[in-house]
Amino acid sequence: MNYIRALGKVSERFLEELKGSNIAFILVIGTTDTSLIPGITVAGASPELTHYTPPADAEFLKLGKCLVIPVPPVTPDGKPTPALVSRACLLLLNIPSIVVNAGCRVRPLIPHVDLAGEPGRDIRTGNALDENVCRRILENSKMLGRELSDIFDLLIIGESIPAGTTTAMAIMVALGYDAWGKVSSASPNNPIELKVNVVKEGLRRASIDKTDDPIIAVSKVGDPVHLAVAGIAAGALENDSRVLLAGGTQMCACVAILKHLGVNLDPDMIEVGTTRWIVDDKSSDMVGLLSEIWPNYALLVAEYSMSTSKYPGLRAYDEGFVKEGVGMGGLLVTTLVRGFTPDDILRKVEEEYEKMIR
Amino acid sequence: MNYIRALGKVSERFLEELKGSNIAFILVIGTTDTSLIPGITVAGASPELTHYTPPADAEFLKLGKCLVIPVPPVTPDGKPTPALVSRACLLLLNIPSIVVNAGCRVRPLIPHVDLAGEPGRDIRTGNALDENVCRRILENSKMLGRELSDIFDLLIIGESIPAGTTTAMAIMVALGYDAWGKVSSASPNNPIELKVNVVKEGLRRASIDKTDDPIIAVSKVGDPVHLAVAGIAAGALENDSRVLLAGGTQMCACVAILKHLGVNLDPDMIEVGTTRWIVDDKSSDMVGLLSEIWPNYALLVAEYSMSTSKYPGLRAYDEGFVKEGVGMGGLLVTTLVRGFTPDDILRKVEEEYEKMIR
Repeated sequence: MNYIRALGKVSERFLEELKGSNIAFILVIGTTDTSLIPGITVAGASPELTHYTPPADAEFLKLGKCLVIPVPPVTPDGKPTPALVSRACLLLLNIPSIVVNAGCRVRPLIPHVDLAGEPGRDIRTGNALDENVCRRILENSKMLGRELSDIFDLLIIGESIPAGTTTAMAIMVALGYDAWGKVSSASPNNPIELKVNVVKEGLRRASIDKTDDPIIAVSKVGDPVHLAVAGIAAGALENDSRVLLAGGTQMCACVAILKHLGVNLDPDMIEVGTTRWIVDDKSSDMVGLLSEIWPNYALLVAEYSMSTSKYPGLRAYDEGFVKEGVGMGGLLVTTLVRGFTPDDILRKVEEEYEKMIR
Repeated sequence: MNYIRALGKVSERFLEELKGSNIAFILVIGTTDTSLIPGITVAGASPELTHYTPPADAEFLKLGKCLVIPVPPVTPDGKPTPALVSRACLLLLNIPSIVVNAGCRVRPLIPHVDLAGEPGRDIRTGNALDENVCRRILENSKMLGRELSDIFDLLIIGESIPAGTTTAMAIMVALGYDAWGKVSSASPNNPIELKVNVVKEGLRRASIDKTDDPIIAVSKVGDPVHLAVAGIAAGALENDSRVLLAGGTQMCACVAILKHLGVNLDPDMIEVGTTRWIVDDKSSDMVGLLSEIWPNYALLVAEYSMSTSKYPGLRAYDEGFVKEGVGMGGLLVTTLVRGFTPDDILRKVEEEYEKMIR
C-alpha cells in the first residue's frame, strides 16, 4: 500500500474495509483541569484557553470556523490545530462526522452527542471523576457505539483533550504498564519531566499503585475522553463493526482500557492509525507502548509530510509541532488508503488554511 | 389502510415510504418555565417535577426505566407517560431512536444529541429565549436534519415539553393564526382559560400583535422544542428525506414555523401523525388549526384504543387522559401501517406497563 507504513499485525481485510462506503468519523472531546498546569500542554494559546480547544476543534472540523472562540485553536507560538488537517481529509473523504462530548467545561455550539459525562479534575489534587460518572460514561459510550454500529460498518475514532497525554500516561501506569516518559507532545520540546511528576503526584494522592479495573484507574487519575473512546470502540466491536483508533500515544491508553474491559483485540476488527510525526518522534515511544499493552497490535502510519508547504505554520508539523490530535493520523491513513495522494491532501489542507488565516 | 384514518391530502407514496426500512424516530425534548404555573400541565406529578419529565421520558423510551427520577413520569393522579406506548411501538418497529435536547433544565443521563440550546423562560415574565439562542437552535436543528437525512429516508419527529400546548398556542397566535383555545391537554379537563390568559399575558408583555418572523415569535412567547422540531424537519426536507411530525396540536405550531420559514409543505414529503384521542377531543380542534395554517394538510390518525386493557392506568387514555406526547400518535400510525394490529400493540404496551409498575 502506497504511503502507508504497516506495523505489527495489520490485516488486509481491515484495509479493504477502510475503503468501504459505510464509514464515519467520531470525534470525542472533553477536558481535564490537569491542562491548566502551566507548561504541560501547548493545545491552546494559554492554560485557560485549553478549555476552549476541544469545542473549538469540533466546531472547526464541522464548520471551518469556531464559535466558542473567535479564531481556531493554536499553540502559544501560533501553530494551527490538527483539526485543519482532519477537516481537509473529511472534505476529501466525504464521510459523516459526529462530535461526542464526553465531558467538557465548555460545550460546542454545534449539534453534538452528549454522553452525560463531566469534565475531569486536576489529577494532582483530587480524583479525576467520580466512579459513578465513570460508569455512566462507559455505559453511555458503549450504548452509542452499539447504536452507531447499526448504521456504520467502521468507526474512525479520534480525540481532542488538552493534557491528554499526561492523563493517558497516568491511566496506563495505573493499569500496570511502563508508560513512564513514553507519551508524546504537541511541542518539539516534550515536557516529559513535568508530566512524569504530575502523574506521580496523582498516583500518590490517590494512593494507587496498580489496579486491574479501568474504572478505578480512570476515576483516580484519568479523564472522560480515553474512557469514552474505549467505550464507543467496545460497543461497536460488540456489534461486529470495525474500529480504527485515530491518534497517537493517547490511543495506547484506550487500548489498555479496552484490554482491561476484557474486549477481544483482534487486528482484523480493530487497528490504530497515526502519523509518522508520532512514530518517528524520539521523545516518545508509541510502538513500545502499544506492543507492551497489546502484543498483537496493528498500527497504520500515514507517510504524510507538509515539509514542502508554502506556509511556515504547516511546515512546523515537520519540525515537531502538533504531531497528532482530532483524529488526524487515522484520517490521513484512511484518505491515503482510499487513493488520494499526499499532494492531494496537502493542497486541500493549504486551501483550508488559506480560508482560516484570511 | 386498516386502523388508519386519513384526513386531508394524505399521499399513497408517503404511506409506502413509511413502510420502508430506513426510518428513524427523533424525540426532541426541552422545557419551558411556563410549565411551573400551577394547573397549566399534568405532565408531571407536580409543577417542579415537570422539568424532569422530558429527560425521564427520553430515558424511559430508550431503557424502559428512568435515571433522573426514580419512577417514570405520571400525571398527578398517576396516569403513565405516553413514552410507554411509544416504547412499545419502537420495540415492535425495531427502528433506531435518537433523543435530541433542544433546551432542558435537566439533561437526560443517556447519550443524546445536544443542539446547544437553552430552556425556555416563563413567557408571562420575560422573553422565552434570546434571539441569538433561537437562531442557534434553528441553525443546529437544520444541520442535524440534513445530516440525519444522509442516513435515513424518513424521520418521525416527536416531542416532550410540559406546557408545550400553551407555548404552541402562543407561537401560532403570534404568527397570525386563530389558535385561541384550540390546543389540547393531557387532562380530560383542558384548562383552556388558564392557557389563554397566559398566552395573552405573554403577548402583552412582549408587546407583540402579529409577526411573520418565526424567530421573533419563538423568542418572545415560544420555547426551544417547537423550533427544533421544525428545524430538523426543514433540514431533512431540504435534503429530500420525508418527515412525519408525530404529535397533536403542538405539531400545528411546528407546521406554522415551517411555513413561515418558507419551507414547501408538500404532503408527498411531510405529513402529521396523531392519535384519535386528539382528533376526537371536543376541547380542542386539531383539524381546524391544521387546515387554517396548511390548507393542503395531510393528517394520519391512529385508530388505536386501550379501552379493553386490563389496567385502569391504560384505560384512562380512553377517558381523556394523556392523549399525545413523546411521538405516540406518529409511532402508532407507523406501527399500524407496517401491519401490526391494535391488539399486537396493546399486548406490547401491557407487557412494558407490567415491567414498569413492578
